[in-house]
Amino acid sequence: MDSTNKRTDVNSLGEFALIDHLTHAFDNIHPSTIKGIGDDAAVLDYAPLCTVVSTDLLVEGIHFDLAYTPLKHLGYKSVVVNVSDIYAMNATPKHITVSIAISNRYSVEALEELYAGIHAACAEYQVDLIGGDTTSSPKGMTISVTAIGQAEKSQLVYRNGAKPGDLICITGDLGAAYLGLQILEREKRIWAEHPGVQPDLQEQKYIIGRQLKPEARKDVIEALRRVGVKPTSMIDISDGLASELFHICRQSNTGALLEEDGVPIHPEAQLMALQFKLDPITCALSGGEDYELLFTIAPSDAEKLKYLPEIYIAGEILEPEHGVKLQTKGGNIHELKAQGWQHF
Amino acid sequence: MDSTNKRTDVNSLGEFALIDHLTHAFDNIHPSTIKGIGDDAAVLDYAPLCTVVSTDLLVEGIHFDLAYTPLKHLGYKSVVVNVSDIYAMNATPKHITVSIAISNRYSVEALEELYAGIHAACAEYQVDLIGGDTTSSPKGMTISVTAIGQAEKSQLVYRNGAKPGDLICITGDLGAAYLGLQILEREKRIWAEHPGVQPDLQEQKYIIGRQLKPEARKDVIEALRRVGVKPTSMIDISDGLASELFHICRQSNTGALLEEDGVPIHPEAQLMALQFKLDPITCALSGGEDYELLFTIAPSDAEKLKYLPEIYIAGEILEPEHGVKLQTKGGNIHELKAQGWQHF
Repeated sequence: MDSTNKRTDVNSLGEFALIDHLTHAFDNIHPSTIKGIGDDAAVLDYAPLCTVVSTDLLVEGIHFDLAYTPLKHLGYKSVVVNVSDIYAMNATPKHITVSIAISNRYSVEALEELYAGIHAACAEYQVDLIGGDTTSSPKGMTISVTAIGQAEKSQLVYRNGAKPGDLICITGDLGAAYLGLQILEREKRIWAEHPGVQPDLQEQKYIIGRQLKPEARKDVIEALRRVGVKPTSMIDISDGLASELFHICRQSNTGALLEEDGVPIHPEAQLMALQFKLDPITCALSGGEDYELLFTIAPSDAEKLKYLPEIYIAGEILEPEHGVKLQTKGGNIHELKAQGWQHF
Repeated sequence: MDSTNKRTDVNSLGEFALIDHLTHAFDNIHPSTIKGIGDDAAVLDYAPLCTVVSTDLLVEGIHFDLAYTPLKHLGYKSVVVNVSDIYAMNATPKHITVSIAISNRYSVEALEELYAGIHAACAEYQVDLIGGDTTSSPKGMTISVTAIGQAEKSQLVYRNGAKPGDLICITGDLGAAYLGLQILEREKRIWAEHPGVQPDLQEQKYIIGRQLKPEARKDVIEALRRVGVKPTSMIDISDGLASELFHICRQSNTGALLEEDGVPIHPEAQLMALQFKLDPITCALSGGEDYELLFTIAPSDAEKLKYLPEIYIAGEILEPEHGVKLQTKGGNIHELKAQGWQHF
């Protein structure tokens, strides 16, 4: 298959380095391409408005396990993860395409469930399903969603706009989706060993819901607009807080001090982390799929956020020479490690 | 997995009926959605220009076989099949996103080959690669490409604009890509039985090239613009001529008389069809992946096409009560059957 004898394992690079490596030779020729690869979404300057495009691939056995994922939730989530990227640009999602490859072990009724979830998400986020492709696959299911949104050019928020002195803000709570996944995986193992044992998941309802049916923070984007705050940088938290903060710092050429005290963690997630003998802050830093927003604001805007729910200030952007650091609850300061989801 | 006991096989519906079935409940809420599901591409009215969006999923083992498909050609083709859909709307492709799911049996060098092909196609069709997603898969490779283009609203050509009396036009030649695939499949079988026997494919260079490295008819779209002809309807020929003509007739609510004499078939394809004991016209009608254009024009425009190369007039649009018919070289008239590529 290779034209040379050299063989470099894809695992050796990691997802982001691999994308960089494969696409660095591509130059943009259209003046309308104002942001290509490297943010939550691409931005096309189709005056008077900009068009914002984001795409994701969900693969069975990698991103979802149908042993415990209801198809309706899967359909819903596949839309949410994409509109979340559009919101992270401070844009409004308008349209999506959905393509599916499925093996013929799926019935029409199973696909109806999947599309019922897609439909519910389209209604919730007010997006039109405008196209797609449906084809067979030798094995398993792959879902590809592209979301298209719009924004005024002046309203767009990129990853590269953070300035030293800016405050780091986090929405909702973090780590719960990761812990929900740990529970589902554990129950799957128990089921495999003792078929017939019905799990009682009532007490973990919140964190399992965060894994199976996440929501995008449309409400936060709307609230920020209402109070007249435009973040200086923003990213959605799909790979874990640490990894996303590194993206912002690298692209903005800054350092950061993140305060453990300010990182929001749900009480149910706190409890479950301890049951799993995990540190809750590690789940928040390295777990993924919460689809919350990480953004930075000018300090002068802090007052305006005061009465907005579910937005937490969790540190400060620093000059680049400080690096990216975590201040623990005990007051110690550590170098932060980026350990997001790695699919390779 | 199903919420009910009913189980309908996905094979029982066919791709187009399945898409209809799954998406008929989706209503569009944005006035900008002027064409959703059901044409070569969706159209978004982002004034002053319209944005045209098309997406395709290519799955290993279904759409391509890496036993005989060089990765560079595969990358090229994955872009071509999408820009072809944009041209079929009489629009100009501008941007693409490319997402890939791959198992870790692929090396970085293999992906470099794939991206070299994508790069070559971006240069040829003048499109910017603006994003995508790269992830792992448990097995095989899946490529998802979304192409985005632009056109003035008045210049867009849909499948539903054909009128009785319009002339049916076909570009290039048909059936060769299908025959190229037959040769490659045959050589694969021979190789499996007698490893070491090197195939001599020199004499089939043209038709194998049509399968492995098709081109989109950018040149035809530009030529039509130059001579001032706007087709009344248009579709790209990805599933076979018969299937595409049925799409136009059904959406335009017309019948058609297709003349075998007017259907362009390359001499090499003629010859190879006979070697395979196939009727060349059947290969043109039912083979797929030629990525030529099928379009209709007002009879008054026929004169303007006279000096354009590779555009062939092959029949006439009729009133709907005539159905869709084929007039053979011998003068017999048959009901045309739609037997395009069916992936289910």
